[in-house]
Amino acid sequence: MQTVFHLIADEPAQQQTALAIAENLTQDDSVEVDDVAVVAQADGIGPLTAGGDGSDMVESLLETGIEVKACSNTLDLKDLAESDLVDGVETVPSGGGELTRLQSEGYAYIRP
Amino acid sequence: MQTVFHLIADEPAQQQTALAIAENLTQDDSVEVDDVAVVAQADGIGPLTAGGDGSDMVESLLETGIEVKACSNTLDLKDLAESDLVDGVETVPSGGGELTRLQSEGYAYIRP
Amino acid sequence: MQTVFHLIADEPAQQQTALAIAENLTQDDSVEVDDVAVVAQADGIGPLTAGGDGSDMVESLLETGIEVKACSNTLDLKDLAESDLVDGVETVPSGGGELTRLQSEGYAYIRP
Repeated sequence: MQTVFHLIADEPAQQQTALAIAENLTQDDSVEVDDVAVVAQADGIGPLTAGGDGSDMVESLLETGIEVKACSNTLDLKDLAESDLVDGVETVPSGGGELTRLQSEGYAYIRP
Repeated sequence: MQTVFHLIADEPAQQQTALAIAENLTQDDSVEVDDVAVVAQADGIGPLTAGGDGSDMVESLLETGIEVKACSNTLDLKDLAESDLVDGVETVPSGGGELTRLQSEGYAYIRP
Repeated sequence: MQTVFHLIADEPAQQQTALAIAENLTQDDSVEVDDVAVVAQADGIGPLTAGGDGSDMVESLLETGIEVKACSNTLDLKDLAESDLVDGVETVPSGGGELTRLQSEGYAYIRP
């Protein structure tokens, strides 16, 4: 099974919860989860920026093999460069497109 | 691929983001998206009402061929008639039912 | 068709809306919905606790045959025992795992 988490709101507590749930998911032996991804866009991009609130959790998720993806439209809109992101974060053309693509491949969707 | 966006909260900034992401999605050449729909219910109905906050974005989405659907239960609850909605918005018996039906047909779900 | 509702935020109005939508869904004759579930975790757990805000709605959902599931990680984190939950609420190892499992079985996902 596969799961994608969607970060979109500027709510640090919610983002922390999201990232904790992603981590818990990898530790739940009752389901066999092969891939976990996080897609962030709009005001959910914060934890993906180097030094941003919650970026330490993003770093630890990346270490466990979770893919973390930032929306390029959001980077443009917020005047962010790829070099502003935590090392290991990928960019995707659009957050909506990536969420559509992953769900069409069978990923479950969770919006914390 | 197909995608449905869910508007449910009374948060104008979030609704604007949702509608912008829907528009970006139609312009993302990396995914082939055939159908995009918006289902609004509860306090997410605002932008679908004629003259409501964000109704100009709903009008422009309709022009690009995106289907915009309002929950009839919500209309009843808020004492709204179909004539109060932006021209071109459809009604569905229940928002939950429509979201279920679309996902069962293969639509990806995005909740901004 | 099958639908799972996700309760995660500490927003009583949103939770009430979620539970009302779940109830409406069972009454929408335009879609044939066989199973409806509610998965609650993090700050969405409130209405599942006996005497908590919205627990009366959870009781009435359980009476209509809707399955209501609480995340065990959340119970641990909030120092709650199963005996603190509304009678009939089940526990699951992790909310994220349960949401993944249900969607992989074909459940539509709705996040109010």
